[in-house]
Amino acid sequence: MAGSEAKKPVAKQSGAKKKEVKKETGLGLTHRKAENFGEWYSEVVVNAEMIEYYDISGCYILRPWSMAIWEILQEFFDPEIKKMKIKNCYFPLFVSPGVLQKEKDHVEGFAPEVAWVTKSGESELEIPIAIRPTSETVMYPYYSKWIRGHRDLPLKLNQWCNVVRWEFSNPTPFIRSREFLWQEGHTAFATKEEADAEVLDILELYRRIYEEYLAVPVIKGKKSEMEKFAGGLYTTSVEAFVPNTGRGIQGATSHCLGQNFAKMFEINYENEKGEKAMVWQNSWAYSTRTIGVMVMVHGDDKGLVLPPKVASVQVIVIPVPYKDADTQGIFDACSATVNTLSEAGIRADSDFRDNYSPGWKYSHWEMKGVPLRIEIGPKDLANKQVRAVRRDNGAKIDIASDDLVVEIKKLLDNIQQNLFDVAKQKRDECIQVVHSWDEFVKALNQRKMILAPWCDEEEVEADVKARTKGEMGAAKTLCSPFDQPELPEGTKCFASGKPATKWTYWGRSY
Amino acid sequence: MAGSEAKKPVAKQSGAKKKEVKKETGLGLTHRKAENFGEWYSEVVVNAEMIEYYDISGCYILRPWSMAIWEILQEFFDPEIKKMKIKNCYFPLFVSPGVLQKEKDHVEGFAPEVAWVTKSGESELEIPIAIRPTSETVMYPYYSKWIRGHRDLPLKLNQWCNVVRWEFSNPTPFIRSREFLWQEGHTAFATKEEADAEVLDILELYRRIYEEYLAVPVIKGKKSEMEKFAGGLYTTSVEAFVPNTGRGIQGATSHCLGQNFAKMFEINYENEKGEKAMVWQNSWAYSTRTIGVMVMVHGDDKGLVLPPKVASVQVIVIPVPYKDADTQGIFDACSATVNTLSEAGIRADSDFRDNYSPGWKYSHWEMKGVPLRIEIGPKDLANKQVRAVRRDNGAKIDIASDDLVVEIKKLLDNIQQNLFDVAKQKRDECIQVVHSWDEFVKALNQRKMILAPWCDEEEVEADVKARTKGEMGAAKTLCSPFDQPELPEGTKCFASGKPATKWTYWGRSY
Repeated sequence: MAGSEAKKPVAKQSGAKKKEVKKETGLGLTHRKAENFGEWYSEVVVNAEMIEYYDISGCYILRPWSMAIWEILQEFFDPEIKKMKIKNCYFPLFVSPGVLQKEKDHVEGFAPEVAWVTKSGESELEIPIAIRPTSETVMYPYYSKWIRGHRDLPLKLNQWCNVVRWEFSNPTPFIRSREFLWQEGHTAFATKEEADAEVLDILELYRRIYEEYLAVPVIKGKKSEMEKFAGGLYTTSVEAFVPNTGRGIQGATSHCLGQNFAKMFEINYENEKGEKAMVWQNSWAYSTRTIGVMVMVHGDDKGLVLPPKVASVQVIVIPVPYKDADTQGIFDACSATVNTLSEAGIRADSDFRDNYSPGWKYSHWEMKGVPLRIEIGPKDLANKQVRAVRRDNGAKIDIASDDLVVEIKKLLDNIQQNLFDVAKQKRDECIQVVHSWDEFVKALNQRKMILAPWCDEEEVEADVKARTKGEMGAAKTLCSPFDQPELPEGTKCFASGKPATKWTYWGRSY
Repeated sequence: MAGSEAKKPVAKQSGAKKKEVKKETGLGLTHRKAENFGEWYSEVVVNAEMIEYYDISGCYILRPWSMAIWEILQEFFDPEIKKMKIKNCYFPLFVSPGVLQKEKDHVEGFAPEVAWVTKSGESELEIPIAIRPTSETVMYPYYSKWIRGHRDLPLKLNQWCNVVRWEFSNPTPFIRSREFLWQEGHTAFATKEEADAEVLDILELYRRIYEEYLAVPVIKGKKSEMEKFAGGLYTTSVEAFVPNTGRGIQGATSHCLGQNFAKMFEINYENEKGEKAMVWQNSWAYSTRTIGVMVMVHGDDKGLVLPPKVASVQVIVIPVPYKDADTQGIFDACSATVNTLSEAGIRADSDFRDNYSPGWKYSHWEMKGVPLRIEIGPKDLANKQVRAVRRDNGAKIDIASDDLVVEIKKLLDNIQQNLFDVAKQKRDECIQVVHSWDEFVKALNQRKMILAPWCDEEEVEADVKARTKGEMGAAKTLCSPFDQPELPEGTKCFASGKPATKWTYWGRSY
């Protein structure tokens, strides 16, 4: 039965002695997505029972309703990387300071956020020990040990784990938390070509997570020098966009590390000619942030909206008994419906609680974002049908019981596609092509995702950042899309006026 | 192809310029299980590529070869608990000190081993933050919040995570490490009866992990008051035994916490009569220790021995080409064999490396514990057969290619059963029934697992511990088995001479 961990009002019961009934102040959200996005988001993730705030700032409890999404994404991604002969492993949570500090750019990128263990029980540790913010420095000393000859390559490992980044700015559930869950892949190859190819293969899996599972459109591209992974050669990413805030959000990253870490950690091997050579490395990760992006993109003023492919309950069946109606018949029809759907591989559940009205239940499951609601009342029973109500657009459809499985499957597919299409249309409406600084500033103030010709110089990006620094945060590059529009000769950089070398997305970001 | 992360000698290559070839000192183990068990164990887990020692003491790297076992166990256990309507969640790694210290007995049990984060980046934290040694105190403040009425019960959550216990005594890979992986289930019920029933349902799953998957015989029973979980009501466990060291080892525990934590964390609800009531709680866990127990029980002087059900490679196919033989034909036959087995759902791989002899490969895959080796040479090719060699007993069986799948399946089943039977026979030979102190001491010196009638008094256990304290460690209770032999009236406690109330297993332990 649904809702065992639901936050519920104490039931009123006839025959019980008089008691204080705590009143829930309704089920609705007190904030609107269009008016106060930040508050709306916090309210949705809590009221939909995805997140519980924790007594340590920046840490959050992932409740079953969100954990199930994480598991579904994992069930997709893990077999895909196993097909690529990537193997799972587990490296320690702790890093010794010497190793952590080995790669200079890398440690500069992470040092301010590293949490340090200095005590066990009542004793001070001899040297403080860091908690991994990411595992390059944890793993690569052992890559150096394990890789000796060309036959040891490629070495392709992945781990599912928690990492800690003690950030101070604006913690947000899923999006920016001090501890989060992710997978991190770390691979080493004999050639740059192999590494380059894998970077893109993994990025395609990340695109599929967002577009096929979470129904969130993303743009694949390359990060600027300023925004790339600390210590890496180049970074690719899938970039999502939140129209309500006009902010881009890095969805997941697939880095080519080049030979930089290999140099620092001496990851050498003997090649086929018997010469000493250095490996080419990648690292890549997606995290529980994925879930937050999905909430931000699809949620509405009724609460969460879940794409069917990641919903742990795809269909919720609610009995609608009337006075004098065949209540038992209705309940039986609900159970039969759940059974039929479950046997067909559809994740269905019923809500038979006797202390809530059907109306309350509608709101409850809308808040939790269940893609389809099925209502069964006396009329439906008489007509051998059920009524389905879509979460995404509120459409009501009567379905003959005989066609149940086929029609529900169709509807779920349709909802999945529709969520993506609507999100893509909204995102596309936010994309603004600009050619000049004035156009750029205007578009930024309109919260656009800006596509501009750029000279690709680091100082120019720094300059744009400095010039747009304000209350809402500076603009920066999001990515240079792989899918480049034509760049006519003579096109100038919007910011520097120098010759543009590529189209790049700019905007504020999370 | 196998062995991408294998520790391998650099290949000798004709035509390569002269180079230093690091010599591996053979593949064999330098220690014998019967002679120096501790060294043998460390060598096996490293040489079989399960573990790599890490530069922080007590932390170990789980390499793919062991991680795969952990994943197979998870693939069994996770769906089983989902059938029991237990849902996965994720609570933070960190605990604030106030909450950690709420349950007095509990914190006393764990405080000396708690790791503390006191710094982030260069800043001191305002208050130190603990890393979870287990999550009772992390979770239960929220159980208090979520549980209000009887309809919120049962609340049944589980998480797969890492925990940290900064132990100082004798770290051992898998068996005792400062960080380890586990699942921890935390459930709350309206009645003690429900809690009691779940304790045993979970314990049965733990028995199945050991006996059906790891082929390790265990005894189900109840822990003594002295050995129960700190802060709980009673603890049940599955207890394994390592004949070579004569030590018992707690395999996994399923605790009934009673109402003790509920009292401390105010986990109350309104029952059906409208009265305030307190929940009954359980917690239960198994960890990566399972893998260590398996290694200790089945391993031999050739290395690891894997039960087929947990082996990521169940069958390794090795070509045995001879001079002038049809090498390509042999290689093709090997590939075809792997394909046929894989299509039948058997985890098979081949080892086509050209820089190792067949003999070297035999030793290598024996070290890694692969249950079955298939050799294909010219004679096999001519006779349309393959030769299978069992890892558990070395038996060689010729199998007609036409019968491949059926016969290999039979063999794998047989190996699984045989490993269990042999382990059980060895374990049973170590069980000694005693009635007196003298018999007890004698059996302890013979490294037995001792079954003795006991008065079940805490002081008597303390006394036995004190009297047996010596170089090898004190004896303590392992468990009182649920399967109790008859206890004739008038039977005396072996240690105190008082009337015995139950049979209890005693011994040294890990």
